Amino acid sequence: MTALAAIRDAPGLDAYLEELEERLERAVASHRGVVAEIAAEALSAGGKRLRPLLVYLASPTGPPPVEAGVAVELVHMATLTHDDVIDSARVRRGRASAWTKYGPEAAKSAGDYLFACAFNELASTGDAHAVSILADATLCLARGEALQRVQRHDPDTTVEAYLERCGLKTGKLFEAACRLGGGSAAFGLALGIAFQITDDILDCSGVTIETGKIAGTDLREGTPTLPLLLAARRDDDVRAALAGGPVLEGVLLRIASTGAIEESREVAHAYARNARACLNGELHHEELASLTHAIVEREK
Amino acid sequence: MTALAAIRDAPGLDAYLEELEERLERAVASHRGVVAEIAAEALSAGGKRLRPLLVYLASPTGPPPVEAGVAVELVHMATLTHDDVIDSARVRRGRASAWTKYGPEAAKSAGDYLFACAFNELASTGDAHAVSILADATLCLARGEALQRVQRHDPDTTVEAYLERCGLKTGKLFEAACRLGGGSAAFGLALGIAFQITDDILDCSGVTIETGKIAGTDLREGTPTLPLLLAARRDDDVRAALAGGPVLEGVLLRIASTGAIEESREVAHAYARNARACLNGELHHEELASLTHAIVEREK
Repeated sequence: MTALAAIRDAPGLDAYLEELEERLERAVASHRGVVAEIAAEALSAGGKRLRPLLVYLASPTGPPPVEAGVAVELVHMATLTHDDVIDSARVRRGRASAWTKYGPEAAKSAGDYLFACAFNELASTGDAHAVSILADATLCLARGEALQRVQRHDPDTTVEAYLERCGLKTGKLFEAACRLGGGSAAFGLALGIAFQITDDILDCSGVTIETGKIAGTDLREGTPTLPLLLAARRDDDVRAALAGGPVLEGVLLRIASTGAIEESREVAHAYARNARACLNGELHHEELASLTHAIVEREK
Repeated sequence: MTALAAIRDAPGLDAYLEELEERLERAVASHRGVVAEIAAEALSAGGKRLRPLLVYLASPTGPPPVEAGVAVELVHMATLTHDDVIDSARVRRGRASAWTKYGPEAAKSAGDYLFACAFNELASTGDAHAVSILADATLCLARGEALQRVQRHDPDTTVEAYLERCGLKTGKLFEAACRLGGGSAAFGLALGIAFQITDDILDCSGVTIETGKIAGTDLREGTPTLPLLLAARRDDDVRAALAGGPVLEGVLLRIASTGAIEESREVAHAYARNARACLNGELHHEELASLTHAIVEREK
């Protein structure tokens, strides 16, 4: 996400992100034990810190409380840790995931710990309304995860149902980040959906398409994403694979050849445009607009 | 827990518990989807509602906000739902557990949903300090779960390490219930530890001991509880079973014959006495004292 580099020039952002890292570390190290260790490792693996960035940029009057950024990032880390357990993902950001090293039960507990740390951090500001915003996003995350399981191996999932899932799984936490910063909820929701669609596109295009050999994780797991759903309408082998059948060699090239990826990209761009339309002379208007471009144009 | 019947006569308690049930139902039904369904089922399976009862009785001035009772019960339900996933427990309170019916992933999401509902409920009171209390208890729960995994199959777990686990896994939520009611934290912590020790005693005594055939869940899973740890010091077969070896027929009778159960019961009673020593002329002093007896003398 090269466009992010420009956004990071926003005045005061460096200091904010520096404090954020320090506070993230402190938040999970507050208690000893194996869950705190796993949590610390998950944090040290890094990440784009996109949600805290959003908290910062959405703030209409100046730097928001760093606790809000810490809390949304901790919730995000919690879901990554839980996803690793569920998806049995063995590598996350180039490292062995918590799941592999400590076993699924420890990783599950570490995820719960990260959730609790997030609420602890936010409650420390004394702002119960902020806690409500985060709790609402968190319960939507759980609903989104469950919806994903319901939709699994169903090539007849409607685009509408897919978009609902994107909203719950990703959009609501982006929305919460914006609201916690004091910004537009609708901007965050639309941006989050654009982000998720782009994520799903990258899973079945990107470098793997060069070889055409390695099918994307989503197809292998039967997760009906937008590009897969659109391709399944036009290619019976994709449809069968999505429904749980064999994933044939070269299937990613065939997905691309259906035009499903381009079409999905258009939908992502439409959500990015919707997000921009919510902006209205914010303090960081320009950076927020750049972010909508960076998110749908990223290549990893 | 027959002594509970007397406690339930406390003035105003009936109305409190009635409102509690209604609010519990409403809290999980606020959103639609499979996680809300699982959560509603978990609630309708009932339970002693011991933690909300504690919130009520601990309150020094009169009925506490019902949201506090709702929140602690939801956190408790969340851990039960997650425990079902981890322990693969197939029956909970005479019904098929969420795990069996919907699969472990849905149950995990439902647990996350229940956690989020708890924070949502408590934050709705506008009391961020209360949220901090609950968040602290919740992260201790996660630490306690992880500690249990670390101690698994280790017959050399010290009694001190076992008691630390009881404090984290059970004591801290009892403590939180008391603090949310405005009562004594130390009372709640000691009572919770007494409750957990009694639970662990019941797992390897109770009705199963009549037949001597069915070993307790804890022994089969290698969870070093106080009675098992004490028995393992005196019986090599118990020690071997706890370490992951075969669970021999009649082993529960042998555990009882070591005197480990009586000794564990004494420790539970000591914690109940400690809890009583924390009381100091509370509004519901008598009921709280009765509760400490009821908890260690219960037979299921």
